[in-house]
Amino acid sequence: MEGKAASHTYAAAGVDIDAAGRAKGLIGEQAKTTHRPEVLGGIGFFGGLFELKGYRQPILVSSVDGVGTKLKIAAAMGKHDTIGIDLVNHCVNDILTCGAEPLFFLDYIGMGKLVPEQVAAIAVGLAKACREVGCALIGGETAEMPGLYSGDDYDLVGFIIGGVEKEKIINGRNIQAGDAVIGLPSSGLHTNGYSLVRKIFGIDQLNKNYPELGRTLGEELLKPHRGYYKQIKPVLSMIKGMAHITGGGLVDNIPRVLPDGLAVRLDKKSWTVLPIFRLIQDRGNVDPSEMFRVFNMGIGMVLICTPADVNRLKEKLPEARVIGEVVKQAGADKVTIG
Amino acid sequence: MEGKAASHTYAAAGVDIDAAGRAKGLIGEQAKTTHRPEVLGGIGFFGGLFELKGYRQPILVSSVDGVGTKLKIAAAMGKHDTIGIDLVNHCVNDILTCGAEPLFFLDYIGMGKLVPEQVAAIAVGLAKACREVGCALIGGETAEMPGLYSGDDYDLVGFIIGGVEKEKIINGRNIQAGDAVIGLPSSGLHTNGYSLVRKIFGIDQLNKNYPELGRTLGEELLKPHRGYYKQIKPVLSMIKGMAHITGGGLVDNIPRVLPDGLAVRLDKKSWTVLPIFRLIQDRGNVDPSEMFRVFNMGIGMVLICTPADVNRLKEKLPEARVIGEVVKQAGADKVTIG
Repeated sequence: MEGKAASHTYAAAGVDIDAAGRAKGLIGEQAKTTHRPEVLGGIGFFGGLFELKGYRQPILVSSVDGVGTKLKIAAAMGKHDTIGIDLVNHCVNDILTCGAEPLFFLDYIGMGKLVPEQVAAIAVGLAKACREVGCALIGGETAEMPGLYSGDDYDLVGFIIGGVEKEKIINGRNIQAGDAVIGLPSSGLHTNGYSLVRKIFGIDQLNKNYPELGRTLGEELLKPHRGYYKQIKPVLSMIKGMAHITGGGLVDNIPRVLPDGLAVRLDKKSWTVLPIFRLIQDRGNVDPSEMFRVFNMGIGMVLICTPADVNRLKEKLPEARVIGEVVKQAGADKVTIG
Repeated sequence: MEGKAASHTYAAAGVDIDAAGRAKGLIGEQAKTTHRPEVLGGIGFFGGLFELKGYRQPILVSSVDGVGTKLKIAAAMGKHDTIGIDLVNHCVNDILTCGAEPLFFLDYIGMGKLVPEQVAAIAVGLAKACREVGCALIGGETAEMPGLYSGDDYDLVGFIIGGVEKEKIINGRNIQAGDAVIGLPSSGLHTNGYSLVRKIFGIDQLNKNYPELGRTLGEELLKPHRGYYKQIKPVLSMIKGMAHITGGGLVDNIPRVLPDGLAVRLDKKSWTVLPIFRLIQDRGNVDPSEMFRVFNMGIGMVLICTPADVNRLKEKLPEARVIGEVVKQAGADKVTIG
């Protein structure tokens, strides 16, 4: 080498620009299946272009989310085609709480080693959930970052833009004491509490069959986060406030839509706590109040409406249950569970 | 314990909901400094709300980006208040290539251990760069994911939405042979090529002073990604096509705006390659063609305009240099550097 340093390349430093290009192509194919007439550019452009039409006073509602360490379960199970569903549904539910319809979505995948086929599997889930609600997958970024993510690890982040007419924004402002609190069932953990679950069970138990679950633990934990947009869309005009039950559970999320001076009283006998939550509580000896702060406990979305609308709402949403009521706030707690 | 498992809590599993709340508050303070009248909701809402006004035929231009392993340099230097500038400027430049003005921004921070003060430092940078261009920091997500990120590692992702009138979209369609290719200087590596640099130099050399750089290697590598919006905004009407020089360098990014059948010929003597790139090439014995594919080589943004507009454009942008011209494509290469 005559005193010269060894020749360095980007590929040897762990970054494969060609693999990135291949991944982009595979995502692009999936993305195309989601496009709507408002989408102007292709996915390879520096920015995704979307023509906003049909609103008189358009309010753009945006949200960014990840799926937490549910990713670790997906990686351990070698199943990557549903984690994108989790991500899109999480984001769609978030903006739905303001009354917004999903318009377009962008994703970010950060990983240590870019495996184009794995990226493609993730994109399959993203595109499927986007098509389901008419949302365009308009752009994304895959970043190969050796040394930041180890092994097959990756992080997955989603960004959504929705639209709502200004006069139709749902913001909880008209909620009053006596209003009904309605719950819609979750499919399982959705995307919260996975770090605690992994601590309690350990990765090696994922393939174990649990009779009370009717499936393996891994299958149960990978059930996709439910999306509520299609069900709730027809009843939006009846809803005064809405809370998506994610990190922090019912206890932390319902207060986000409650006006000052109001609280909710929930009756935990009014809905079925899914078997997975009982299993977690038993195996981990988790305090019940901790369970309610970490997990959704079987309720994925909470709607608040006037009592007069309850029956009409339940007709349209057969799974809906009245799980509590809005009351004047007495102490420090905005949510009491009895 | 009488046969009972040890009691598990979310905090013991490595997720601190209270720290998350504190971090949210600190980000919220920074975010408020960026708000513009169109912002309707506060940052704690499920979605960020932005009223779109003042466009006749609004096109929303969106982009998602990370800052790559520049994060590793920031972590090693213990300096977290400029990495947010990198992220915002990267995103602003991306949508600027379509002619869009920045409207609002959302961030995602994924980390192994949530340190609220570190998150606050990141937010300081985000807010500073947002204020600079009148972009509202409207929402964000901090995710604590023990086991996915190790030690103090974190990933940082940004999402931007901009707006442009449909008739003013810049898309390269009118570019023709003979057009001028104009370069604007970069401040350094911006956000690309860090994995290669880390491989060549190693983290222990960051504090070493390099006379040719006039500073330490770490200081040089952390120089913020330049934003070009304010400079370029007054000359947008003269620009036919624009390329933000990121991963893939001049070679991969310029073709993204070139119509079929056209290529560009660059004259590498027409601009100054910054000393940092010569240092990297020497120390790493990196092939020159590899250098041009990994790094921006001193050009952060490329503009294409008709030759008749060059002088007027250079008057407004004193740093601009003609670095090449558009030609009919002869072979397979869309970019040749002579």
